[in-house]
Amino acid sequence: MSDLHILAICGSLRAQSRNLTLLKYAQANAPQGIQIEIADLSEVPFYNADIAEKPVAVQQLLAQCSKADALLFGCPEYNYSLAPALKNALDWASREPDNKLLAGKAAAIMGAGGGMGTSRAQYHLRQVGVFLDLHFVNKPEVFANAFSPSFDANGNLVDEKLQALIVQQLLALQQLSDKVRG
Amino acid sequence: MSDLHILAICGSLRAQSRNLTLLKYAQANAPQGIQIEIADLSEVPFYNADIAEKPVAVQQLLAQCSKADALLFGCPEYNYSLAPALKNALDWASREPDNKLLAGKAAAIMGAGGGMGTSRAQYHLRQVGVFLDLHFVNKPEVFANAFSPSFDANGNLVDEKLQALIVQQLLALQQLSDKVRG
Amino acid sequence: MSDLHILAICGSLRAQSRNLTLLKYAQANAPQGIQIEIADLSEVPFYNADIAEKPVAVQQLLAQCSKADALLFGCPEYNYSLAPALKNALDWASREPDNKLLAGKAAAIMGAGGGMGTSRAQYHLRQVGVFLDLHFVNKPEVFANAFSPSFDANGNLVDEKLQALIVQQLLALQQLSDKVRG
Amino acid sequence: MSDLHILAICGSLRAQSRNLTLLKYAQANAPQGIQIEIADLSEVPFYNADIAEKPVAVQQLLAQCSKADALLFGCPEYNYSLAPALKNALDWASREPDNKLLAGKAAAIMGAGGGMGTSRAQYHLRQVGVFLDLHFVNKPEVFANAFSPSFDANGNLVDEKLQALIVQQLLALQQLSDKVRG
Repeated sequence: MSDLHILAICGSLRAQSRNLTLLKYAQANAPQGIQIEIADLSEVPFYNADIAEKPVAVQQLLAQCSKADALLFGCPEYNYSLAPALKNALDWASREPDNKLLAGKAAAIMGAGGGMGTSRAQYHLRQVGVFLDLHFVNKPEVFANAFSPSFDANGNLVDEKLQALIVQQLLALQQLSDKVRG
Repeated sequence: MSDLHILAICGSLRAQSRNLTLLKYAQANAPQGIQIEIADLSEVPFYNADIAEKPVAVQQLLAQCSKADALLFGCPEYNYSLAPALKNALDWASREPDNKLLAGKAAAIMGAGGGMGTSRAQYHLRQVGVFLDLHFVNKPEVFANAFSPSFDANGNLVDEKLQALIVQQLLALQQLSDKVRG
Repeated sequence: MSDLHILAICGSLRAQSRNLTLLKYAQANAPQGIQIEIADLSEVPFYNADIAEKPVAVQQLLAQCSKADALLFGCPEYNYSLAPALKNALDWASREPDNKLLAGKAAAIMGAGGGMGTSRAQYHLRQVGVFLDLHFVNKPEVFANAFSPSFDANGNLVDEKLQALIVQQLLALQQLSDKVRG
Repeated sequence: MSDLHILAICGSLRAQSRNLTLLKYAQANAPQGIQIEIADLSEVPFYNADIAEKPVAVQQLLAQCSKADALLFGCPEYNYSLAPALKNALDWASREPDNKLLAGKAAAIMGAGGGMGTSRAQYHLRQVGVFLDLHFVNKPEVFANAFSPSFDANGNLVDEKLQALIVQQLLALQQLSDKVRG
């Protein structure tokens, strides 16, 4: 397996976001050869074609996308669809010539939310990936219940099944990325 | 028919947005008994549960939602899904107790985009409406091609079929709103 | 409230279908003023425009649709989307002039399946309803786990929360149907 | 590039189906190294777990799936979603142990329909592919208007852009299949 540099993007801006927790767990427990960097969306404004010059936070996000071999999304579900901050990060990244920051890269999705584990948002994200030409890991899907004992009182992920699933997904991402990079 | 006060929300923040053009056409040509107010999203930040106090622009948006009998969405399509600014406006509006700003209201969608006329984004918006308990007009759907002669060089909507369709959709919204308000 | 005659359509053809169980529970426990008839799809062939004359089973289905005030779907999930038998019944019903068997009617969905309770299939069905001009009940949604103790060894629905939810959904369907019929 | 054996599945059962026309065009114009076999769904019944023994037509379909390196779908759109015959073929194929007939294979979609070119159905099919563990070609997407001069009076595909697009999609499928087979 090749070394894999992953950019992780979290759709929630909350400091205590359970979706961020999932990404941090992935970061801290990534299998050998996988490094995960987590993007900071706090200063990324709404995409607007009238903005003449890319803000610094956007430039940084785009540089991280460019450097990444693959993407990992922490995907909350708001009102049965995507968190705007996550979708907005992808909208910015998609505007480069030939979609060169994203096209052909492998990606994976994990999410923490209500009883459906953000699945409704995740399928919307997969549709976005068709246009962005991302290759998503199909299995395993990672659906966490943010309001369950999967997380302890301090917000740590303590569910062993979910912990194992996250590592499995990272391995599947590494494998898929290896394949689609050819 | 009862008088109908509609709040229109545009997902594009561009000054020359074709989606805004559609909403302005609707506003200027609304059938008798229908008034349309267009929300200003330019200062509405990303929803974030950590924000303790609602910013002024959010307060204004929520007041407009509260006052409105029905909603009209100018729905762009970015990367096969919703424009973050539109989704974000709904996410803010959805956080009031009992979803009282939105629950049970009638709504309609119009969009200008590429060859599919933003249809992919519009079906995502309809899924959002399930959770928000909106009742969408089914027919007519309004799909405009933003890059066609439907719009003149100054960005005005000049396609007579689309003009008629918009008025028909407003009448359908008035009728549906009358019914669901009981 | 007006009397409401509902046609229920089950997407599974299995004799012991859990989705059929949900519909039968609804039928046996319908609030006063609601009658539920369950369609028989066992002899309905795949829709095919080359079929010159409607088979008897199709004629009977269409007659039941015509007579019904509202529709209730028992919606399984096969491979993250709709059961073909359910979709096919709607495809047949949709071919009448002016979509007169379906247009403008109220409808509700209940489903039993895996951990997501057939939610993925249900959102596809809701998109179908846009073209068919159905008005779906938004809340409550009914998602049952077919492999849980919600059903006893004989396949009876024994979960009291689900039982109550089904009755609530029927009341919501009655209310919505009253409104949209005007 | 490796030789690629593709099984094509058409969702319409009509003899003069425009979706079948697309598949036949692909079959007759496949680039070197690509062979396309078209499945016959005319005798495949609705999947039903109560059917104890697989009908001959199903056995034949499953044998063709097993032999195929990749899949090509002729995807009509009925009422904003999938044609039941296509979905049903996949439901049958998905029931083998470990999903061994489908898992990990590459796939592509082409469709002829109304003005949106069956796009609404195609996105539902892509969601089905998540569970089936298919890897879909992202680009080019093939959307044909069945009621346009793209087809001549005899139903032949005569639009040169679409003809070229189909060949491009086959090449993209060959390339993706090569990658995901590893």
